[in-house]
Amino acid sequence: MISFHDIEVAYEVVKRVVHKTPLLSSHQFNRHSGNEVLLKAENLQRIGAFKIRGAYNKIYSLTPEERKCGIVAHSSGNHAQGVALAAKLLGVQATVVMPKSSPPNKVAGAKTYGAEVVFCEDSSDDRERVARQMQEQRKYVLVPPFDDDKIIAGQGTATIEIAQDTRELDYIFVPIGGGGLIGGTALAAKQLFPAVNVIGVETVAANDCYQSFRKREIVRISPPKTIADGMRTQAVGKRNFEIILKHVDDVITVTDEQVIEMMRFFLERMKIVVEPTGAVAPAAVYHNVLGLSGKKICAIISGGNVDLTLLKTWL
Amino acid sequence: MISFHDIEVAYEVVKRVVHKTPLLSSHQFNRHSGNEVLLKAENLQRIGAFKIRGAYNKIYSLTPEERKCGIVAHSSGNHAQGVALAAKLLGVQATVVMPKSSPPNKVAGAKTYGAEVVFCEDSSDDRERVARQMQEQRKYVLVPPFDDDKIIAGQGTATIEIAQDTRELDYIFVPIGGGGLIGGTALAAKQLFPAVNVIGVETVAANDCYQSFRKREIVRISPPKTIADGMRTQAVGKRNFEIILKHVDDVITVTDEQVIEMMRFFLERMKIVVEPTGAVAPAAVYHNVLGLSGKKICAIISGGNVDLTLLKTWL
Repeated sequence: MISFHDIEVAYEVVKRVVHKTPLLSSHQFNRHSGNEVLLKAENLQRIGAFKIRGAYNKIYSLTPEERKCGIVAHSSGNHAQGVALAAKLLGVQATVVMPKSSPPNKVAGAKTYGAEVVFCEDSSDDRERVARQMQEQRKYVLVPPFDDDKIIAGQGTATIEIAQDTRELDYIFVPIGGGGLIGGTALAAKQLFPAVNVIGVETVAANDCYQSFRKREIVRISPPKTIADGMRTQAVGKRNFEIILKHVDDVITVTDEQVIEMMRFFLERMKIVVEPTGAVAPAAVYHNVLGLSGKKICAIISGGNVDLTLLKTWL
Repeated sequence: MISFHDIEVAYEVVKRVVHKTPLLSSHQFNRHSGNEVLLKAENLQRIGAFKIRGAYNKIYSLTPEERKCGIVAHSSGNHAQGVALAAKLLGVQATVVMPKSSPPNKVAGAKTYGAEVVFCEDSSDDRERVARQMQEQRKYVLVPPFDDDKIIAGQGTATIEIAQDTRELDYIFVPIGGGGLIGGTALAAKQLFPAVNVIGVETVAANDCYQSFRKREIVRISPPKTIADGMRTQAVGKRNFEIILKHVDDVITVTDEQVIEMMRFFLERMKIVVEPTGAVAPAAVYHNVLGLSGKKICAIISGGNVDLTLLKTWL
């Protein structure tokens, strides 16, 4: 398992290229929640999501030989864009495998940053299969989406920034896809805010980690139907789950309807565009799923890459 | 004319209630503009616009007797919301006169903060007439939208925050409605960044200050048809124009189409909701109306209160 020191080292690497995103707050959000809430706005990050942190840290760590081979990644969207931009910044050729149903804006994003996009079926199994194929045939180096020490350490750097801007936290709420963000966040948060409770959040349909956490073993679910496309991974990673079991205090769920209400609040009241997955952790705080009162809470808005056409239909 | 000291004093007052809004940046924005651009995100301010700064500073300055009388303000929207919230925070009864055509979300905003809303015709002349009537009949104290020293000083406080976050600026681009924001900004900017060029921006249809600046006297235009509803004021204020003549280096215009393109970029690429008036100053930098290259530029995003129904039609 990585240590907090790995995250500190990663921060020295990624801070050269990432935005230090703001901690936003809203009196209306606080009133609705009954708590004092800070929102880490990673939707305002480069590529519109936290994924650039892990991707850059990982590709930066490759040897010159590996960098020359080129890299391959598979992703429903934001990891693809993170890898594409990180590769471009480091002068590495990138190919990303994306499910056919990926939001068009995320596909376009990956292409904008100069990556080759290869499509696959919608299950995360098929993604992995196609990516493995390209590793073997074209000798590309795989940049895994979450089950990787460098990726986890990179994603944890957002919490170092949080600690630069606020001294105390009672709770931190983090969305769970494959466990990259919550892995890094939990490790960093427990170090930086010793008394903090780390809460993972999924949507009801994508509750694989909710189940895994209770069973204390990784549960794999069928490709879930949820508005949160970043949570369509079918299981968390091994390294990620090890950290989750050690450092996460609870895993809870919210409904797709609660996520949509949260997105609308962000747009109308806070003037920020948040993608469904990015609204999951805040929704748990806004709707106060845990029944907390007067606590100081940080929720991570993981991304903002929502297709404007889709957004219109949700509004 | 007020001095920089008045803005410093105002900052001590308003900093207790306003958000310190972030300076955002985007590599894509920079590339498109050819300059290094910082965006002061006052769309992320309380009430979704900078107006809370001036309104709070003004109402705070009233005597206990004046506060007891209650206040009245007239506004196409954001000033109404600023006055409503500031009055609520200070325990003062507020009435706002709004044109019939005001965006529904801005009317709803003012009501949310507990203000009474009275409608008038769409010209700024009629707004002033109705507001004056209420002053006389109900003995309310007027909180003017821009032609007032306390208002101007309050709006200038955004620039104190800008100077906390960046040391040097070659240019600052500011939208012009009645001149409250540019008045305070120009005064503060010339003090805090002695070499800065202050550029005012209007839309082509709402170019009253563009004309006034060239004639060196206040020109009054017919109610302009422009997407930028915050620029439908027909002339800048006297106090404001005095500052503009002394401290503003140029006034330029952008088209409504450029404003819409800017709003769309903010939504899609930067994940922020910006209202038309808020996109005017950034649009002049994004489309590089002045043909600048390699300059360090701040543009103020003045607000984000766009009606979601209207937003859908623009997209």
